[in-house]
Amino acid sequence: MATASPKVITPVEEARRFMVDCLKAVGMPEGNAVIIADNLLEADKRGLFSHGMNRLERYINDLKQGSADGSATPVVAQESTSAVVVDGRNAMGSIVGTFCMDLAVKKAKETGIAIAVAFNSNHFGISGIYAKQAIKQGCLGLIFTNTSPIMVPTRAKQPALGTNPLAMGAPGNGDEFVLDIATTAVAIGKIEYYKRKNEKLPEGWALNEEGEVETDPEIALKSGRLMPLGGTELNSGYKGFGLGMLVEILSGLLPGSNYGLLIPKWGASTEIRNLGHCFIAIDPMHFVPGFQDRMTDLMEMMRNLEPIDPERPVLVPGDVERENEERVRKEGGICYIQNQHDTNAKLAQELGVQPMGSIAARPLIDDCKCKEKKKK
Amino acid sequence: MATASPKVITPVEEARRFMVDCLKAVGMPEGNAVIIADNLLEADKRGLFSHGMNRLERYINDLKQGSADGSATPVVAQESTSAVVVDGRNAMGSIVGTFCMDLAVKKAKETGIAIAVAFNSNHFGISGIYAKQAIKQGCLGLIFTNTSPIMVPTRAKQPALGTNPLAMGAPGNGDEFVLDIATTAVAIGKIEYYKRKNEKLPEGWALNEEGEVETDPEIALKSGRLMPLGGTELNSGYKGFGLGMLVEILSGLLPGSNYGLLIPKWGASTEIRNLGHCFIAIDPMHFVPGFQDRMTDLMEMMRNLEPIDPERPVLVPGDVERENEERVRKEGGICYIQNQHDTNAKLAQELGVQPMGSIAARPLIDDCKCKEKKKK
Repeated sequence: MATASPKVITPVEEARRFMVDCLKAVGMPEGNAVIIADNLLEADKRGLFSHGMNRLERYINDLKQGSADGSATPVVAQESTSAVVVDGRNAMGSIVGTFCMDLAVKKAKETGIAIAVAFNSNHFGISGIYAKQAIKQGCLGLIFTNTSPIMVPTRAKQPALGTNPLAMGAPGNGDEFVLDIATTAVAIGKIEYYKRKNEKLPEGWALNEEGEVETDPEIALKSGRLMPLGGTELNSGYKGFGLGMLVEILSGLLPGSNYGLLIPKWGASTEIRNLGHCFIAIDPMHFVPGFQDRMTDLMEMMRNLEPIDPERPVLVPGDVERENEERVRKEGGICYIQNQHDTNAKLAQELGVQPMGSIAARPLIDDCKCKEKKKK
Repeated sequence: MATASPKVITPVEEARRFMVDCLKAVGMPEGNAVIIADNLLEADKRGLFSHGMNRLERYINDLKQGSADGSATPVVAQESTSAVVVDGRNAMGSIVGTFCMDLAVKKAKETGIAIAVAFNSNHFGISGIYAKQAIKQGCLGLIFTNTSPIMVPTRAKQPALGTNPLAMGAPGNGDEFVLDIATTAVAIGKIEYYKRKNEKLPEGWALNEEGEVETDPEIALKSGRLMPLGGTELNSGYKGFGLGMLVEILSGLLPGSNYGLLIPKWGASTEIRNLGHCFIAIDPMHFVPGFQDRMTDLMEMMRNLEPIDPERPVLVPGDVERENEERVRKEGGICYIQNQHDTNAKLAQELGVQPMGSIAARPLIDDCKCKEKKKK
């Protein structure tokens, strides 16, 4: 019988060390490995575990198969005053993403707004990290990326667009707005969670192979058909589909990467995926003074609205993730689930790197949400 | 008893003449009046009647009360290489919008991407018209505007953001993508339509004054509380709320116009509304060649997907509106509902302008959707 055991915390530095070692073991230069590890850590710190260390194994597979090039660095293929096209050269997505947002911010500081689009790229992790990259430079950032088909367009039977996330970051005064959403109603991870809970799905999340709304999570997972934000056509799902196309146009069509049905499934083959991204930076210094004050004011205006349930205050995009970051700081590290520790142990052995160490949680912590099962 | 009568069609030229005459009668210069009339006509031609001539009476009220200035023209308040801030000088929104998109396109042709934001503006009609303005110049256009509070943020009890629409246009080959959506689940007009049909609302459209999901259209209309795209928090309504904030940030915070709760209700007072807009233009000539081909290919890829119901093919944003435009061309004019003709007759009398003339529909037409009641 599994009983609760003391919480296990992995210091951020140790999680980074482990990921960097794994990536180096499959031939990635240290500089690139640190960028990838920091990208995945950022997701874990923000509580978005599905996009954090959870992805390390997949990244390592891509590198081993040669479907992504761990040593590659992107280059500028075409350049205008406020626009850049970047050839990702099949580098890891986060290397391409960081490079592009940096270029967009530099140009936006000169001209007010700038855009960098990339082709020949790979999965770039959470979009929010690039939003934060822009915020750190005092800019607004808009981020778009295409992904392999999983969203079923309104009225269609089959998936033809990806989860196609869009993100926006904007700086306030000691505060920030970070929106990072898939244009599907939910991500696959949420359906997996309902399966674990053995609960029916709400209507509007997924379809079965006949194109009917499906509430059985097991059937939904097998069919692999997510509905666009909004759900059914009656509930304006065509708007979510439209937003998915908007993302595809900016991230896939402008840079001339693969798009829609042309994008191969991730991990299914050694085929190069040729994903596209789009990064737009806007420097508020080129607009009416006081942007950051207004940003803070708008966020406070929303947070201070009377909530329906006094226990559940109104949150603005980024608030939940910031609370998670705060917990990681207080607890001195990240609380990974046992499943992640098991995967890491296997990776460490396979790659011949030092296993990831952890510490027992400090006595002050009582709100760590992750349940660790007793090791036998 | 009302029985079906022959369909009544108003030639586009006559509808324009009538609107221009009405606007001139309240002191608007002819040049401005033509821009406003064309904006409203564009909505009617695309079948978006709520945003067409239906708005003329409200515009005339604004002008009579002096809450908007029919003679004003906007000016550039601040300018950078790829960014402009426009002072709308309380002009009619469509005058400001047309001016801004024109500036954004001109700059984008030079630099790849450009942004024009406006403060001190008014309601600007359908966003799609500015998307089409960009398309005509071979550019992509992104359009954002704030509006008076009517959307209830997730978990809140009261409205704090407007319907905050976003639009995007992109040129294909003899084809175009025009997305134009409110970030609320639906617009108020749809709830009015359900009231007329005497049908319950689907869950996820509106709230009552207690903040509960409301399915009675009458109560929903009285409460004036729309839910964000997605609906409830469980169905990802927080994404729609986040998109509403994204629109508010770009259109309200960058230009320093009113925002959120600061925006007065439309028509409720003579108070100046000081709305804000944001227009982004992107010139595909600064990116990888062949954008228009890829755009057409992506749209065809979607339209050719196997539909769940063979009678209901997959549509891309803009297809329905283009079909409506086609019908107007075939029928030689616009088929307004009797209610609109009644309002026009009243306006003509009040303003002393020649009433709007109409013609009986040509015999070839049998698919005009609007039902005309027999005049007594």
